[in-house]
Amino acid sequence: MSITHPQGFRAAGVVAGLKSTGAKDLALVVNDGPTFDSASVFTSNRCKANPVLWSQEVVKDGVVKAVVLNSGGANCYTGPDGFQTTHAVAEQVAARVGIGAIDVVVCSTGLIGLANDRGALLAGVDAAAEQLAADGGTAAAEAIMTTDSVSKQVVVEGAGWSIGGMAKGAGMLAPQLATMLVVLTTDAVVPAAELDAALRAATRVSFDRLDSDGCMSTNDTVTLLASGASGITPTPADFTAALTQACTDLAMQLLADAEGADHEIAITTVNAASEDDAVAVGRSVARSNLFKAAIFGNDPNWGRVLASIGTTDAVFDPADLDVAMNGVWVCRNSTPHADPATVDLKPRSVSVTIDLKSGDHRATVWTNDLTHAYVHENSAYSS
Amino acid sequence: MSITHPQGFRAAGVVAGLKSTGAKDLALVVNDGPTFDSASVFTSNRCKANPVLWSQEVVKDGVVKAVVLNSGGANCYTGPDGFQTTHAVAEQVAARVGIGAIDVVVCSTGLIGLANDRGALLAGVDAAAEQLAADGGTAAAEAIMTTDSVSKQVVVEGAGWSIGGMAKGAGMLAPQLATMLVVLTTDAVVPAAELDAALRAATRVSFDRLDSDGCMSTNDTVTLLASGASGITPTPADFTAALTQACTDLAMQLLADAEGADHEIAITTVNAASEDDAVAVGRSVARSNLFKAAIFGNDPNWGRVLASIGTTDAVFDPADLDVAMNGVWVCRNSTPHADPATVDLKPRSVSVTIDLKSGDHRATVWTNDLTHAYVHENSAYSS
Repeated sequence: MSITHPQGFRAAGVVAGLKSTGAKDLALVVNDGPTFDSASVFTSNRCKANPVLWSQEVVKDGVVKAVVLNSGGANCYTGPDGFQTTHAVAEQVAARVGIGAIDVVVCSTGLIGLANDRGALLAGVDAAAEQLAADGGTAAAEAIMTTDSVSKQVVVEGAGWSIGGMAKGAGMLAPQLATMLVVLTTDAVVPAAELDAALRAATRVSFDRLDSDGCMSTNDTVTLLASGASGITPTPADFTAALTQACTDLAMQLLADAEGADHEIAITTVNAASEDDAVAVGRSVARSNLFKAAIFGNDPNWGRVLASIGTTDAVFDPADLDVAMNGVWVCRNSTPHADPATVDLKPRSVSVTIDLKSGDHRATVWTNDLTHAYVHENSAYSS
Repeated sequence: MSITHPQGFRAAGVVAGLKSTGAKDLALVVNDGPTFDSASVFTSNRCKANPVLWSQEVVKDGVVKAVVLNSGGANCYTGPDGFQTTHAVAEQVAARVGIGAIDVVVCSTGLIGLANDRGALLAGVDAAAEQLAADGGTAAAEAIMTTDSVSKQVVVEGAGWSIGGMAKGAGMLAPQLATMLVVLTTDAVVPAAELDAALRAATRVSFDRLDSDGCMSTNDTVTLLASGASGITPTPADFTAALTQACTDLAMQLLADAEGADHEIAITTVNAASEDDAVAVGRSVARSNLFKAAIFGNDPNWGRVLASIGTTDAVFDPADLDVAMNGVWVCRNSTPHADPATVDLKPRSVSVTIDLKSGDHRATVWTNDLTHAYVHENSAYSS
């Protein structure tokens, strides 16, 4: 159900023939209104894919009536011809759905530098438009999968309104949203400006704090569509809370399905001088290949945590840091404390707690371990 | 020969018993003068090991008469007792060699958070002092190895003077010198201020541009000792050139022996608006796990190069980038050019050239691929 759980949306997922496997590879989501307010965030990578360049223009007026997404090719660094492919896809959606192309967000994912077959895409749009249905959410969620092993969907219920969401992404997950595609829908009545504020608040503490492998994508897009079909206007606080819950749920699904990972790692920094400090410290640990390889080896190597903290500009005393792994304080006052052998790292879920003793702010950053399977999957992706 | 090739130096490498393997684990290098000028650079990690905290004070007056190094334990995050161990080792060297402890640089490498056995260290110093010899360079170079598979040594000949060097490091190699220990010797007559300028110039384009795995150590130290025993004063330009050659040679030895690597990768950024831009672009690619895993898989995945460039603030037009791999321009004007299948990535040595078309500066950053062996070695290091 996911994105078609809220009222006012239809969706479809079809086989356009871009994927060599013959799996579904084109999704279409249409907002039937009565409102068409929207908000979006995109990758901050300066090397942006053609669909991002297109969609950034589409979303400027706050009105989006459809989102079309394809897997099987990122349409990134494919030149002017690739941009024309994106434009043609938007025009085709517009013609089939009866809207303007300038209200159609386009998303693509897959290999960079590979031109997508325009004919296959346009035929796929035709097929998807035929199959648009109020129960098409799951088919759409399946059509955007690449190396994902499962589709990611969520529903959060409000008081008479709801939020639905779907996401794809299993690699290139990084701070500024990376090859992650997310579509969120709601039947609440929320104007575009409020959607934007809520979306930025929600992504800041969810997708933005997921750093699976430190790599930033060229195609990341998160688009939120509001149909207003419930006729209900929630308070901004209620809506933001529900949206944050939906984004966090999808982020945890992405984390759990990250390429080749054996562990999901939550790094929580407490007593930081600022929230930015807490995020910077968590991120530095999340990006340490040595730390991530140690977790893969079930090795509570807290020295690699301290070595990462030391690379940041956060406020702390290097001689007075505490570190816990899975609740065991293996380091107190920057010296060995509990026996690391008492830390059981076999469960998939690992927590690292870092006490900076410099304030009262905190933040959690999520990452995965660095495994043989990660190396294997990413050394063989395009071959 | 290495560090004992220049006149005026004696060295030794002995078994102190810190390594469980019974291999050599303590090295001593003594400058017999007549000059005792020196220069040093240390890790920029804020979480510094006890020997770094000690040695930073030692080097302040430009006079260093001996360097004592141990493998088998980093003496980092071992608390005040660990600092006292470092101090005791310096005092022991001073007593045995007949100098002041404040002229003794101490270096340690190995696991963080592990207290070194002080008694074993002091006995090791006694043994090393007994064995100091004018041909002890190789034994010293062997004693500082940890996961290194070979010792790293270099000799560069000047006109009547020379430079010798030894290095260790096979993981945690990162921009600001990371668990890399390097001792450089020369019998040239060079005052401390000139040594400092030459060392900073040499490390800036050698060790500082080596980014094997993006992790920054807590213990990195590079110390340069000048005995003046040749009686010859080279020009600053000649000395800096020879020192740069020595440092670059050692850096390439470190690169070639990086933990688990299958490829040495040289990323050269040309036509950059500044040297800083060129380094930032090269470093961003060197730190992309996805790019590094692709090289391991012999996959010329230039899309991952562009995705990394896009994360930097360097001056460039995202729509006009050229990328070559092993001399084949797989991307021109940010669009596919030569067939990637024509790039042969089987040789260990890989070159990536990035043309930013924004100026006339260039820089090379070196890294390794991300392999199963890297993950294995670093998931099992302390267990």
